[in-house]
Amino acid sequence: MHILTMDDLTNEQMLELLHAAEQYKSNKQCTFHSAFAANLFFENSTRTKISFEMAERRLGLSMISFDAQTASIQKGETLYDTVKTLEAIGLDVVVIRHMEDRYFDELTGRVKLSIINGGDGTGHHPSQCLLDLLTIYQEFQRFNGLTVTIVGDISHSRVARSNAEALNRLGAYVQFAGPQEWMDSSLDHLGPNVELDQAVKESDVLMMLRVQHERHAFGVSFSKDQYHQQYGLTEERERKMKPSSIIMHPAPVNRGVEIADSLVECDRSRIFKQMENGVYIRMAMLQYVLNQREAIKHEFVN
Amino acid sequence: MHILTMDDLTNEQMLELLHAAEQYKSNKQCTFHSAFAANLFFENSTRTKISFEMAERRLGLSMISFDAQTASIQKGETLYDTVKTLEAIGLDVVVIRHMEDRYFDELTGRVKLSIINGGDGTGHHPSQCLLDLLTIYQEFQRFNGLTVTIVGDISHSRVARSNAEALNRLGAYVQFAGPQEWMDSSLDHLGPNVELDQAVKESDVLMMLRVQHERHAFGVSFSKDQYHQQYGLTEERERKMKPSSIIMHPAPVNRGVEIADSLVECDRSRIFKQMENGVYIRMAMLQYVLNQREAIKHEFVN
Amino acid sequence: MHILTMDDLTNEQMLELLHAAEQYKSNKQCTFHSAFAANLFFENSTRTKISFEMAERRLGLSMISFDAQTASIQKGETLYDTVKTLEAIGLDVVVIRHMEDRYFDELTGRVKLSIINGGDGTGHHPSQCLLDLLTIYQEFQRFNGLTVTIVGDISHSRVARSNAEALNRLGAYVQFAGPQEWMDSSLDHLGPNVELDQAVKESDVLMMLRVQHERHAFGVSFSKDQYHQQYGLTEERERKMKPSSIIMHPAPVNRGVEIADSLVECDRSRIFKQMENGVYIRMAMLQYVLNQREAIKHEFVN
Repeated sequence: MHILTMDDLTNEQMLELLHAAEQYKSNKQCTFHSAFAANLFFENSTRTKISFEMAERRLGLSMISFDAQTASIQKGETLYDTVKTLEAIGLDVVVIRHMEDRYFDELTGRVKLSIINGGDGTGHHPSQCLLDLLTIYQEFQRFNGLTVTIVGDISHSRVARSNAEALNRLGAYVQFAGPQEWMDSSLDHLGPNVELDQAVKESDVLMMLRVQHERHAFGVSFSKDQYHQQYGLTEERERKMKPSSIIMHPAPVNRGVEIADSLVECDRSRIFKQMENGVYIRMAMLQYVLNQREAIKHEFVN
Repeated sequence: MHILTMDDLTNEQMLELLHAAEQYKSNKQCTFHSAFAANLFFENSTRTKISFEMAERRLGLSMISFDAQTASIQKGETLYDTVKTLEAIGLDVVVIRHMEDRYFDELTGRVKLSIINGGDGTGHHPSQCLLDLLTIYQEFQRFNGLTVTIVGDISHSRVARSNAEALNRLGAYVQFAGPQEWMDSSLDHLGPNVELDQAVKESDVLMMLRVQHERHAFGVSFSKDQYHQQYGLTEERERKMKPSSIIMHPAPVNRGVEIADSLVECDRSRIFKQMENGVYIRMAMLQYVLNQREAIKHEFVN
Repeated sequence: MHILTMDDLTNEQMLELLHAAEQYKSNKQCTFHSAFAANLFFENSTRTKISFEMAERRLGLSMISFDAQTASIQKGETLYDTVKTLEAIGLDVVVIRHMEDRYFDELTGRVKLSIINGGDGTGHHPSQCLLDLLTIYQEFQRFNGLTVTIVGDISHSRVARSNAEALNRLGAYVQFAGPQEWMDSSLDHLGPNVELDQAVKESDVLMMLRVQHERHAFGVSFSKDQYHQQYGLTEERERKMKPSSIIMHPAPVNRGVEIADSLVECDRSRIFKQMENGVYIRMAMLQYVLNQREAIKHEFVN
């Protein structure tokens, strides 16, 4: 009733197990119910991870749990060997979040499973970008001619650059506001730096960024309260917004810093809607790469 | 075959993804197979967590894993914002265990998902209480007229107060035994403090509480062995119990402290049966709140 | 809509919950969809754990997550009480990995659920052994007459002894190579110690073992590079292998130590195939113990 040591098995039982395994190998398709997915989060991000997990479950994918904290990568295994192992074990798609910029460059072209980037270094975070686009699109049914102001720590934000680029490509007018030391001159071609108080009146979308406690000390240049007064969305600023304009934030919000506590769930706020949209857009992304895999398989067969 | 950066997507592909996401949004019900549940355990309790998970799986709920250790709450997010996020992502019910007394007061009336309390501070632990009641009820088919003695660290026990109150309400006669310094005068209206050796002879149910190594040093007042001799269920005491009476303990047991090692699985012991019952009562609790949600939805529709 | 405290429940609601729980108890089979499994890994081994999880999912088992790091066993609970709890909660099979040699001796004969050993101390690791056998069998369709050389840290290897024993039993010719201080005279009856350069030419299978950074300091006797030159599979040695012979390694590989980086995915290497086979053999093992359980149940019924 147990299998504890090789001594518990006769030679016949051993060979029986080998033959049973061969059967499983040749009948792969019978035991597969669905595609297999895993979330490899080498950097903490509960929110993004849970959102991907919900998307995976709603699509009916089978999930393999992966704990980056206890993974063999801690024993010095490369990311490539880890991913290659997951491929060998039978995974179809992995979502990876990793602290290294463009970690995926060592993987593409060398692995057969599909990768969705759940965020790399301070670089790319396409699912966040797409959920922001979805939220704007739901509101206005267009991007063309919209004024979007991105406010806060532009230079350290994973989201600011991708959003600014995507919005430009789709025809929106982008501008940046926030502390001078957090502006990023490499984004100058994507939009001007503007005064927040003026931007508040003109924008269709105010996209507030999170102040990263983990990365900067507030103490250096300003206190939480000073930040809120100078660069945050205060109740006073909110009253100057156009009737139809909306507030966005990637969350988690530092209430009373980027946004007044009372505004987080106000009528203009789309913050929790962004979270809801995150699930739908991640479903779409997963289905998109899985469809491409199917298409490739069919090509090989025909 | 991957989605790595926004640059990998044409404008057409981006819009395609947005439209696919909109489809998922409007067809929610098609991809939902069942209610979605998560277990938020901010305090370790493997036993309770696994029991809830088994209950959730047996009910066929879809589970989203949540690791409190790596959660955004560690970045200073409030419990309210965490729960609100899970609601936005689509969860129907969460089981929460939290070190703070009445943590749920900041949630009730402000969230739409259902909460089952998996234990708060030193306060409430309704699923433990109900499984204890179930175990007694299975044994005697009644509460009325039963004598139940709760033994041990009354003053620090999550379970002692709720059980004493519920048993009183249901007509049982409750009494307390244990070290004087661990008695709790605020429970005087629920039953008297009695001598263990007398109680052992009279009780239908002996409910032994766990000595919390984490909270007290044994060393102060007594050694493990002294505790066992004075306040534990020794083999000698067990021989004085009535033929029909039973032994209960919330587990994990400190063998040889609260109960003699040899008695943990004796005929009178219901300790492992309590664990089994824990799964059934948690299924009943989950189904109860889910039924109420359904009822509410129907009200809105009609 | 919530269940937060016992005070929220009327006596009638309490009794309703007790009756609902009784129903769940008596109708066990209706809510069971499949056997329930859990992986208890008290020692990190992502690779083995993920492989078992994939096997379990492909067999359609229901999984209960178990985090050994936060388990009650940390509060001093014995392994026996932990496993007994899981049995009471309703698990059918558990896979256990534990740092203690023959941890299972305190369990067998005392528990009703089935145990598959996922590795104990420096002792047994039957699923690794069986997947190695499967990989050899797939290649040669026999064991009889094959020469298998096991190379490296023989004395500390979980795998070396079991593999050597099983291969002997199945008719293969086994030999050992590696640093003198890592040879193990208690294995002398299973095969001779040989020179690596000679063995490379004669072997059908070269089974390279992982050098455990965690257990030894390289510094003492040799550097990584020295190890590779003396006891590793260099490109030069690979060229001397017989045309049909294969390379195996339990992984994770220290690239450039046990095996030249360029050889890890060469034509002879079966390293990633071993990982794939791991899933199939674990499916076979799980199905094997579950079938035995069924057989036992039927015996009781008839």
